Amino acid sequence: MIESRHVGAGAVMKIDGTVAASWGDIDSPVMARSAIKPLQAIPLVESGAAERFSLSDMHLSLACASHNGEPRHVEAVRAWLSRVGLSEADLECGAHAPGRLPVYEAFLRSGAALTAAFNNCSGKHTGFLTTAVHKGEPTHGYIRRDHPVQQRLLGVYEQLAQCDLSRAPMGTDGCGIPTIGVPLRHMALAMANMANPARLPEARVTAIRRIRAAMNAEPFYMAGTGRFCTRINGTLAGVAQIKTGAEGVYCAMLPTLGLGVALKIWDGTARASEVALAAILRHLGVLSDAQFDAAVTPPVLNVVGLKVGDIRPAASWLGAASR
Amino acid sequence: MIESRHVGAGAVMKIDGTVAASWGDIDSPVMARSAIKPLQAIPLVESGAAERFSLSDMHLSLACASHNGEPRHVEAVRAWLSRVGLSEADLECGAHAPGRLPVYEAFLRSGAALTAAFNNCSGKHTGFLTTAVHKGEPTHGYIRRDHPVQQRLLGVYEQLAQCDLSRAPMGTDGCGIPTIGVPLRHMALAMANMANPARLPEARVTAIRRIRAAMNAEPFYMAGTGRFCTRINGTLAGVAQIKTGAEGVYCAMLPTLGLGVALKIWDGTARASEVALAAILRHLGVLSDAQFDAAVTPPVLNVVGLKVGDIRPAASWLGAASR
Repeated sequence: MIESRHVGAGAVMKIDGTVAASWGDIDSPVMARSAIKPLQAIPLVESGAAERFSLSDMHLSLACASHNGEPRHVEAVRAWLSRVGLSEADLECGAHAPGRLPVYEAFLRSGAALTAAFNNCSGKHTGFLTTAVHKGEPTHGYIRRDHPVQQRLLGVYEQLAQCDLSRAPMGTDGCGIPTIGVPLRHMALAMANMANPARLPEARVTAIRRIRAAMNAEPFYMAGTGRFCTRINGTLAGVAQIKTGAEGVYCAMLPTLGLGVALKIWDGTARASEVALAAILRHLGVLSDAQFDAAVTPPVLNVVGLKVGDIRPAASWLGAASR
Repeated sequence: MIESRHVGAGAVMKIDGTVAASWGDIDSPVMARSAIKPLQAIPLVESGAAERFSLSDMHLSLACASHNGEPRHVEAVRAWLSRVGLSEADLECGAHAPGRLPVYEAFLRSGAALTAAFNNCSGKHTGFLTTAVHKGEPTHGYIRRDHPVQQRLLGVYEQLAQCDLSRAPMGTDGCGIPTIGVPLRHMALAMANMANPARLPEARVTAIRRIRAAMNAEPFYMAGTGRFCTRINGTLAGVAQIKTGAEGVYCAMLPTLGLGVALKIWDGTARASEVALAAILRHLGVLSDAQFDAAVTPPVLNVVGLKVGDIRPAASWLGAASR
């Protein structure tokens, strides 16, 4: 018996704007949330800020991360802020406790105070601040829609997604920055342009290649212990760079295929978005059957460790049914 | 912009088997999970076990509970086990940490060892054990399908739901007991028969009335701090008794109307099942508009406390569209 079902949509796009594969409605607006953090890291590199402050793959991975707030994440963010002459007081993302129980337990046992560096978005925010410092912009208010940091991001998204965002629905993300409703077709096109940036200006191409390499090289800093983003980015170096977003979104860049992927589970559930992304990657031959099974078919265990179910993609999300 | 959507089904039934209101597919099997714990508490009272061991409303509420594992829950379960000559070692539900961060934090700070009494189902299991002790049945293996405890529950569910469960799909619940696929039409009929048990044998009527009264009288023990079940059961004494279940299920007994309610959100999400239940209760006049707003429309806040959205029932779940 199937106990629960999730319904979603996904787009696999080429840079010429054609659909390589799709599932469901790819024309309604979807807020990418954190799934486009790699795109939002472009100005950090492109501006020269990353070079000026000698940022490593670890820093760039953190700029793209929704991290667990593990000690290594938090310490790296603090050291980075210090390197650019700032502190946690400059972060405008707010503080939230680590959501995963083992990380939360370790945090409590450490006796540390909860600060904004623990926020899963603290690396992205530190990247924004670093760019602002480098460009001599005010750091205060960098999350506001009219701040140059956010205006630049809007411009990058518009260019890569190849759509006019002036009338797109706008919301506010969990960490305070604007989030924009964009059809999956265009979100995936933005990912295709990151997978195959050949048509873009040289500085942007270089920035994108550096960000992609960092995601594969330092996957722990993308997410953390036990996380799907960390596992897949660590396994598929050079082949795929993936990023989750709140409310059931996933994006992927597939440079060897020159394809971009974006998907949304309409109910917003991560357990389904991970399986859907893995199904697409298998369909495209990026994950082998064995890698797919290892990635997404661990049994559902009950409290005493008995297998009581599993989580599977629907037949329509498997290879043959792509349309 | 609507960011995420949940789809579900719900049935409101009368004891004559007619549908008072429904939404979506009410004929596919649904596992009630914890939503029928009040029904599963019937043998505890009906058998005379509750009277023999002088169980109070607190104990009966715990028998119906998916509790937070707060100290009062855990201590009450331990004292109850002791009263019937057993201990936590007899619980077969396993131990899981409190899932809510503030409760988990208090647990860690207390230095207490994690035991089966913390399991959200520990009250239900203690009720099962109490009935087994009272009837002189083996306590070991009380979660197994062939144990008299589970066979009795199957019989109660069959009688109240008015359907043959011999071929119903069977699974294993998170706490190890069998869980059975039953159409919402029949799950809601079971709730109607608990709301208006007039047609049932006297001992069962008495048991059901005691359980319903305990749910309203001791709502903290049904769930705990901040929980929807605790709020609604505490607010609607005599009018409604509600119980959540894993994977997006909710059940309600409405004795003043003689109606039973069962609903399932197909994706299994509690944020939606609570809103759907509240929408049905408002449609039926059980919740006033003001109570509905207080119950389900708190804004969605981001990390820094800014309102970024809200959670609302779809128009089709509001009064006029019932069909």
